[in-house]
Amino acid sequence: MFTKNADESIRALAEVALIAQIRRWLGAVAPSSPQGMGDDCAVVDWPKGMKQILTTDSLSYGQHFDDSVSAHDAGAKLIKRNLSDIAAMGGRPGEALLNLLSGGDLQTDWLAAFFDGICDACQEYDLTIVGGDISTLPNGQFTAVLSLTGYSEKTPLLRKGAQAGDALYVTGTLGGSLLKKHYNFKPRLTEGQWLAQSMACSALMDITDGLAKDLRELIPDGCAAYLELSKIPLSDAAHQCANTSGQSAMEHAFCDGEDYELLLAVKNDTKLDIFERQWRQKFPSTPLSQIGQIRKSISKAPYIDSQSNEAMPWIKGFEHLIDP
Amino acid sequence: MFTKNADESIRALAEVALIAQIRRWLGAVAPSSPQGMGDDCAVVDWPKGMKQILTTDSLSYGQHFDDSVSAHDAGAKLIKRNLSDIAAMGGRPGEALLNLLSGGDLQTDWLAAFFDGICDACQEYDLTIVGGDISTLPNGQFTAVLSLTGYSEKTPLLRKGAQAGDALYVTGTLGGSLLKKHYNFKPRLTEGQWLAQSMACSALMDITDGLAKDLRELIPDGCAAYLELSKIPLSDAAHQCANTSGQSAMEHAFCDGEDYELLLAVKNDTKLDIFERQWRQKFPSTPLSQIGQIRKSISKAPYIDSQSNEAMPWIKGFEHLIDP
Repeated sequence: MFTKNADESIRALAEVALIAQIRRWLGAVAPSSPQGMGDDCAVVDWPKGMKQILTTDSLSYGQHFDDSVSAHDAGAKLIKRNLSDIAAMGGRPGEALLNLLSGGDLQTDWLAAFFDGICDACQEYDLTIVGGDISTLPNGQFTAVLSLTGYSEKTPLLRKGAQAGDALYVTGTLGGSLLKKHYNFKPRLTEGQWLAQSMACSALMDITDGLAKDLRELIPDGCAAYLELSKIPLSDAAHQCANTSGQSAMEHAFCDGEDYELLLAVKNDTKLDIFERQWRQKFPSTPLSQIGQIRKSISKAPYIDSQSNEAMPWIKGFEHLIDP
Repeated sequence: MFTKNADESIRALAEVALIAQIRRWLGAVAPSSPQGMGDDCAVVDWPKGMKQILTTDSLSYGQHFDDSVSAHDAGAKLIKRNLSDIAAMGGRPGEALLNLLSGGDLQTDWLAAFFDGICDACQEYDLTIVGGDISTLPNGQFTAVLSLTGYSEKTPLLRKGAQAGDALYVTGTLGGSLLKKHYNFKPRLTEGQWLAQSMACSALMDITDGLAKDLRELIPDGCAAYLELSKIPLSDAAHQCANTSGQSAMEHAFCDGEDYELLLAVKNDTKLDIFERQWRQKFPSTPLSQIGQIRKSISKAPYIDSQSNEAMPWIKGFEHLIDP
């Protein structure tokens, strides 16, 4: 089942291509978004008009954390990165299932601290772990998988829904998450829930693979994102990374993964000054930046610098399934 | 985080001890069964009296299947072993989330056939895959994790609920699943649903780790299972295994894992002949065998041969997390 011929292996497919291939293989067994794959969560119709949302995400040693991250912070990250997907639908968390896959040589003390981080995050965000499973991996390997239910009182906010004229916003600051934020972020749950209740938001997602890869999800066919580069909220960490990486802070903001910020479109008939004032009153410590606008475009470029009218160079973000 | 000192590693804990430890670590974050861990699925109260059930299970190359199992059958097994947990609650399947963890050297053709098996099983049992995730493992490694929602129109049947005097039944035949049945079984969904609707069943589970390990889950405190060994339905495969293993077919029936049959208790005021006749009418091709009875006992032995009144020697089944 494994091969040394790279052309025959899944390594020959980038993550996006592999996911597309899997969806073709699954055919009718995998319904389209919002009922199935393609958004931050799947939305399941329940009787009485209720909506359940479902999501899953894993955390692997060597891929999503390394020895520089404490066991506690790794455990909390597993919970929070899944909650960020619930936030990205404007939903509320329900119950979680946890699968551990580990080498038998994992330190018991390390695992205890990992669960301490899980507990802290679950208590902070009112989540329970209701089931799970343990499997063996070779020595030195560790992966944890969390699957999460959630629900939505209002209609969940999807990635699709934005139109030409809608304003584009992002929460927090972007870039350089590898320094620290990839594990010490806070999932934007209350912000997402507020957006789902407001009638202003037309599309919502969280930024996990970088603005460059994720933003195009929000852009309707025949449109592009016209971005005001001076408004992109660069994090201190993005600047810090730029000092040594040979990339600009702007490139870090576009191409680094794991920001776990919300990216949203606001309907074009919204009074943006009122929307922004309401946000500041509700979330005084969560920055909200208008980074641009969706406009009709005949260009194939998804992102256009609204000052120069030129296509942006960065259109890809973080790709999984590439060997280190 | 990994150690060469076995005493400090999770290898020092058997699977049962590790799960117990994890539940202590999680504390209030992990509610008890039926709301949380401890049964085949967790039962979540929904508004309007509805019950959702949640379960998760993984499938690892080298652990749950090897090169003797086709990719198609491995994919189908992943689906069916999770459906068996839904069956064990008397539930109906809802939606599934799929996590793939794979070395980059996995053959794309193998993965296509694996998904073909997933599709066939999903279509047969009316299940949809609504989300998922892909992670990288070292070359030569493959694990798939499925998390499943389900629901129950009636109250789900739990492992706890049996009383002294209840009769013990098992579906199908037991033992020797390693020869073939571990992947070509059929989850007993319709049987479980019928049991949930009948008022006769007091407790229900599926046998995944062997009768010897699983049956004690059904036995209330202060009781034992008095077993009629001549009634234990030994499979042809159990006899076949006994020819070469040095163990008896009975030991295979008790101690082999992955039977995926239903194990149930029937209330002591039930007219068993009527119950059995109804079963045969409804499920003419699914054997149902009364293997014994739950009786009050002062012995610590969980299983007693009702002919000799002696404790049975096999009380442990398949243990995960032991190195091959």
